[in-house]
Amino acid sequence: MSAEPTPTDRARRANIVGTGLIGASVGLALADRGWLVSGTDADDSVLERALEIGAVAARGLDPEAEITFVATPVGGVVEAVRRALDETGGIVTDVGSVKAIVADAVVDERFVPGHPMAGSEQDGVAGADATMFQGAVWVLTPTSATSDTAFARVRAIVADLGADVITLDADRHDALVAMVSHVPHLTAGTLMRLADRRSEEHLAVLRLAAGGFRDMTRIAAGHPGIWPDICVSNKSAIVAVLDDLIDELGRVRSMVDEEDRVALSASLETARRARRNLPTTAPRPSELAEVRIPVQDRPGEIASVATLAAELDVNIYSLEIAHSAEGARGTIIILVDDAIAERMRGGLLARGYRPAVRTLE
Amino acid sequence: MSAEPTPTDRARRANIVGTGLIGASVGLALADRGWLVSGTDADDSVLERALEIGAVAARGLDPEAEITFVATPVGGVVEAVRRALDETGGIVTDVGSVKAIVADAVVDERFVPGHPMAGSEQDGVAGADATMFQGAVWVLTPTSATSDTAFARVRAIVADLGADVITLDADRHDALVAMVSHVPHLTAGTLMRLADRRSEEHLAVLRLAAGGFRDMTRIAAGHPGIWPDICVSNKSAIVAVLDDLIDELGRVRSMVDEEDRVALSASLETARRARRNLPTTAPRPSELAEVRIPVQDRPGEIASVATLAAELDVNIYSLEIAHSAEGARGTIIILVDDAIAERMRGGLLARGYRPAVRTLE
Repeated sequence: MSAEPTPTDRARRANIVGTGLIGASVGLALADRGWLVSGTDADDSVLERALEIGAVAARGLDPEAEITFVATPVGGVVEAVRRALDETGGIVTDVGSVKAIVADAVVDERFVPGHPMAGSEQDGVAGADATMFQGAVWVLTPTSATSDTAFARVRAIVADLGADVITLDADRHDALVAMVSHVPHLTAGTLMRLADRRSEEHLAVLRLAAGGFRDMTRIAAGHPGIWPDICVSNKSAIVAVLDDLIDELGRVRSMVDEEDRVALSASLETARRARRNLPTTAPRPSELAEVRIPVQDRPGEIASVATLAAELDVNIYSLEIAHSAEGARGTIIILVDDAIAERMRGGLLARGYRPAVRTLE
Repeated sequence: MSAEPTPTDRARRANIVGTGLIGASVGLALADRGWLVSGTDADDSVLERALEIGAVAARGLDPEAEITFVATPVGGVVEAVRRALDETGGIVTDVGSVKAIVADAVVDERFVPGHPMAGSEQDGVAGADATMFQGAVWVLTPTSATSDTAFARVRAIVADLGADVITLDADRHDALVAMVSHVPHLTAGTLMRLADRRSEEHLAVLRLAAGGFRDMTRIAAGHPGIWPDICVSNKSAIVAVLDDLIDELGRVRSMVDEEDRVALSASLETARRARRNLPTTAPRPSELAEVRIPVQDRPGEIASVATLAAELDVNIYSLEIAHSAEGARGTIIILVDDAIAERMRGGLLARGYRPAVRTLE
């Protein structure tokens, strides 16, 4: 027998708190990459299933874990994050759909709030999939206290799961997901209920529902469980978008009522152009540029650079920080598409940074 | 050389007027089944392409065609139907998305208004596909003048293309498609435009759009060309559904604003149940029942029976009419799922018919 450490001894260690759809998918993806994953769930049968499928290898919260993913429903995130910070020495991130309430409540250098924009309408652990985050956008919303080291490590780990990482301010994140996720979900449910109500008058109505209607209402098939919490947690942003939607539908109603073909045509053409331009995950460009940004070695510098990149729609393919020997200064090194590196450089200069850009051979 | 007629001599003959997406798909499906298809299109390059892909074998309107499919944009249907009735001796049907304006304008025993609920967001002839109607619902809305023979023949031909045929009153059709097609389309466009407008403030917004948003806005990628006509043609039904939608979204807004978790949960649960029950094309049941219905041999009897079936959500798998020798009486014979044959019998009895039902061995 060899005295070498076994792979398990050398494995990086992680916790999953809440082993439902997202938690179990993170667990499977980490396990595929050789991590030793421990987990907990409020529902023991859910944890049992996560153990069976290999999303979790051990029960409980591993105090030595390098990272803890909190994947409980939105309502329980703050408490679970605090507990993970107390009971482990590692960094902590969460996957909740609403960020400001979490980012405001937990101010700790080891905490990096996050939100993977992935998941299907399938309920719970049964839909778990190690490839769920391949090409998905994963938003991080570091707080003012989040350390650069914690941010960079979470960023590297979720990027390794195949995700496309975007850094945003928590309030901005919440306003954007109200627009592209929460209100569309509520609207799908509303359309489905209206059609269903008509079906009481006429049984055949739903048989007329062709592909477009099926596409539009697919997300309404999901379990409503998490949605009341999401709606309450992100109330003001959702109400603001619903107000915009109601106003805009009122304008469309007027165009139809007034038979304004020109306005109808123009508004549908705008929508068409926007839909066709909806970005898909960018393939890695053929030419990359390295941007080196000297920074003070203090919390928030990396987050600030990454947030600027998101605002400029510059995709960061890789990010690292080189600390100087003295410890008071460092350099952030990011790789971006060479074609838009100048946009990033301009944005950095405008914010007082002194970046150096070079195209990689 | 043989003196036998060539397959082309014996082929059934059809016309396609308007060889865009739907027209060319009908042409391809008919050609696959051995029909000789002639065609016209206002745009010669579109017709040329239809000839190239084999959706049409000859240019022009064949006066001997057994059936003419009018597949022009909604605004041109009435004129094209009248021309086909004048220039051919066969039956005529159309594929327009709005039916009352057509059914009211053309009262002719040889005309059977129709609407296949199929088609993708792809533009024109390039997306044509012989299998487009397999399993799709195809609505027929016979007028008071439509002859039973014309109705039964169109029904048999579109059923042979793989479609699931449903017969509805034209006004009812228009109200239902406003609900399951027109308003969802306008709503998808509106959501897409709102998100796009936010993207002017923040470039990354659209990168956050995950699967649900993509599903919901997919139909907004379609060419707006036909939509102003559809909106004007079906104005009152669309305005009524938009009013319902705006009211209902207002109620959802109040639930969010008042943090009414119970109401939010209940409304999403209703939507979920309805979405999960959304019928897919019914597979042919294992047990069929034959329903024989003695009728007066006069226009409208078959349509009346088929409309009743749609109202009761009874799928008709086959339909034929046996005329009596005297000509004044006949029997409609339909095949339906044995499990719901009693529902159909009850409906027929309530309308004064004297049906006979037997389970097929």
